[in-house]
Amino acid sequence: MNKAIDYLEQNKEVFLEELFELIRIPSISSIEENKPDMIRMAEALKAKLLAAGADKAKVMPTEGNPVVYAEKLIDPRKPTVLVYGHYDVMPVDPLDLWDSPPFEPEVRDEKIFARGADDDKGQSFMHIKAFESMVASDLLPVNVKFMIEGEEEIGSPSLGKWCEQNKDMLKADTILVSDTGMIAQDIPSITTGLRGLSYVEVKVTGPDHDLHSGIFGGAVANPANELAKLIASLTDENNHITIPGFYDDVIIVSDDERKKMAKAPFDLESYKKALDIKEVYGEKGYSTNERTGIRPSLDVNGIWSGYTGEGAKTVLPSVAHAKISMRLVPNQDNEKISKMVKEHLESIAPPYIKVEVTPLHGGQAYVSPITMPAYKAAEKAYTKTFNKVPVPTRSGGSIPIISTFESVLGIKSILMGFGLESDAIHSPNENYPLFNFYKGMETIVYFYKYFAEEMK
Amino acid sequence: MNKAIDYLEQNKEVFLEELFELIRIPSISSIEENKPDMIRMAEALKAKLLAAGADKAKVMPTEGNPVVYAEKLIDPRKPTVLVYGHYDVMPVDPLDLWDSPPFEPEVRDEKIFARGADDDKGQSFMHIKAFESMVASDLLPVNVKFMIEGEEEIGSPSLGKWCEQNKDMLKADTILVSDTGMIAQDIPSITTGLRGLSYVEVKVTGPDHDLHSGIFGGAVANPANELAKLIASLTDENNHITIPGFYDDVIIVSDDERKKMAKAPFDLESYKKALDIKEVYGEKGYSTNERTGIRPSLDVNGIWSGYTGEGAKTVLPSVAHAKISMRLVPNQDNEKISKMVKEHLESIAPPYIKVEVTPLHGGQAYVSPITMPAYKAAEKAYTKTFNKVPVPTRSGGSIPIISTFESVLGIKSILMGFGLESDAIHSPNENYPLFNFYKGMETIVYFYKYFAEEMK
Repeated sequence: MNKAIDYLEQNKEVFLEELFELIRIPSISSIEENKPDMIRMAEALKAKLLAAGADKAKVMPTEGNPVVYAEKLIDPRKPTVLVYGHYDVMPVDPLDLWDSPPFEPEVRDEKIFARGADDDKGQSFMHIKAFESMVASDLLPVNVKFMIEGEEEIGSPSLGKWCEQNKDMLKADTILVSDTGMIAQDIPSITTGLRGLSYVEVKVTGPDHDLHSGIFGGAVANPANELAKLIASLTDENNHITIPGFYDDVIIVSDDERKKMAKAPFDLESYKKALDIKEVYGEKGYSTNERTGIRPSLDVNGIWSGYTGEGAKTVLPSVAHAKISMRLVPNQDNEKISKMVKEHLESIAPPYIKVEVTPLHGGQAYVSPITMPAYKAAEKAYTKTFNKVPVPTRSGGSIPIISTFESVLGIKSILMGFGLESDAIHSPNENYPLFNFYKGMETIVYFYKYFAEEMK
Repeated sequence: MNKAIDYLEQNKEVFLEELFELIRIPSISSIEENKPDMIRMAEALKAKLLAAGADKAKVMPTEGNPVVYAEKLIDPRKPTVLVYGHYDVMPVDPLDLWDSPPFEPEVRDEKIFARGADDDKGQSFMHIKAFESMVASDLLPVNVKFMIEGEEEIGSPSLGKWCEQNKDMLKADTILVSDTGMIAQDIPSITTGLRGLSYVEVKVTGPDHDLHSGIFGGAVANPANELAKLIASLTDENNHITIPGFYDDVIIVSDDERKKMAKAPFDLESYKKALDIKEVYGEKGYSTNERTGIRPSLDVNGIWSGYTGEGAKTVLPSVAHAKISMRLVPNQDNEKISKMVKEHLESIAPPYIKVEVTPLHGGQAYVSPITMPAYKAAEKAYTKTFNKVPVPTRSGGSIPIISTFESVLGIKSILMGFGLESDAIHSPNENYPLFNFYKGMETIVYFYKYFAEEMK
């Protein structure tokens, strides 16, 4: 294996520069005007995959942004790994909080700073280069397929159908994904559970135009006040979600399992310090890790109404909006929950306002068993490169498409994520440590080796 | 008086074009970059006042935007009217809801559409032209002074001090103001009461940077959710304000007076229709007019946090902001209330968030007696031009400076407002009917005549 590891070592600088090329394309999937960037990005990836050693690579259209597919099939009798990643990124606002422009990557303090540095251009790119090193070293022990999509950050609306249409092409023994994190640079971990997601937008309408808050204030319901009341009513004093039926399908995790989970290293004080908060907060009766790992949550992701500029404007706004998302746990159906939230909010709307709820996107939760060969291979790979057995963890995040892969393709995924909590993904100053970038590639290289052995 | 009225009639088109010149200057006082426009606007007004017949006019500096002062003193033994108006306007966003650009005035359906068409460029300008017609016709029966400020929409922070410094210059028997409305084009009314105002900005801070709502959602308090809870907690199910002590200084209006007020013409159905709302809403136990006339209120004027763009972004925001204002009634002190709100909100902040409240501006409520000469003169003027005795009403709005005039200069104001509820002041598509513009000028002309007679 030394040849492959050496190849990685020798090409460190080149790889970084190549990643920067990809990062410079502002492929924000949720913003319409960035559409041309999605195409540029897909074409750039295709070129990288061919250069890395794929037999073929293509940009395949979907109803939304294209999927980049590539493959190198060495032997039909050998196992097949299907690598999944995404080339789209989150929006970058508030732009003024970035210390360097989000699409002009730079290295500071041994970290790459840029939108997509981790999520998921950085992590996807590691797979291309790990693959390249195996091919270049003539060590690739399995067939490899790549599917890199451009809509993950908007809930992968087209990929499920695309998978359905390309089932044969996508046949594989496992799906390999790096779009999650690990506990710390010296505590490798593998994500074995993901939360689902229900994301809705709420619009509260009062009067049909903005009013003067003096002349009408007190006599006409204010949509911003009413929206605040609606949001406040969604959780109780124990931070339980109050939507009727919300917890019906939640599987209660046994005390025994909770005890095991509680053994994962976690330092509350440094957690609070990293976020600069005095106290954590969440559902009564659960620890911080349980609150994100095994329990659903409800967050306002955005709220806006009325005058938000400088100074004072005495307006009674006509409309108020909020983006609200719920993280779901295994067995909670995201479509059922979105419908439930919509019906609940619309049904409790008092007669003096109008409430409209639009589901924006969603995804199912996912659990991956630690007994599958891919898990075992990954465990060995981390143990080899980090000198520590990785900890299985449940992430609070969601990758909705992972459960779709299972239902459509019948293939389980292995989540080898190399991100850190401090990477600030989805936030200003997203970053990705060079250590994780390089160590991750090594670990992936070993995954191929051990997976081929596990599947023998 | 026919000569003065004829003058108005003959110059209708010219006056409109001159008003348009003033409206085209985007004198938004709350936006820093419009500062140069404030100066341009003040200079333009000075020129208009000199052209209208003022003996002298000057642009006088303050700590903020300048005040335009002008005077024509015909005889020290005659009474003096001090005209107050303001040349600054509200911001114009949301711009996309305007049917024509806010600073390009145009007449549609016999209405002037533009920011400031009514509030208060249109209404201030009527005074310049009514004055001009009296001077041109050699009919002016009183001394006239003008003070037109540029900070009304941000709470007149400099005018009180300026008045203090210019007490002698400002000596007058009454202050004449057109910055309010009347019930309808066929129901003239005079505003005898104004609400006070306490306007604060609330900032809720959670973690020190935006977080991924999946990885942290449920374990870290979300400032947007917490802000919603704070706002919801400020009113109870009867829409009473829950801030301890808030109602302590409110004078309860007697049943007798409430019965008299209830006789003012008001059609709930057309009120609701005009706003396109199914139901009105407000403090339990009070009618719509009482809710804005004699009772305080609390409105969110703006709220913003997190991601407010297109699509879905799964962010747990670091901060959430709201602009909240309270309308106050006579005897409630606005500074006391602002302090009370600040202390209340900061004191109930739970340990997992930080709450900061900044008072932005405020003003005292005002009541004007219907027995004063200026009221009687105004009543006669309306009766003459509208053929109807005007109704005394209490407005829900605030003109904080009016109570300052009383305390600093010791002069009561007469509020001859010609706006209509449908003028959409502070909102997109602000407008001012030509009927009110022209009829208002006539009424002001007669006010001068009757005021001179009342003061004999």
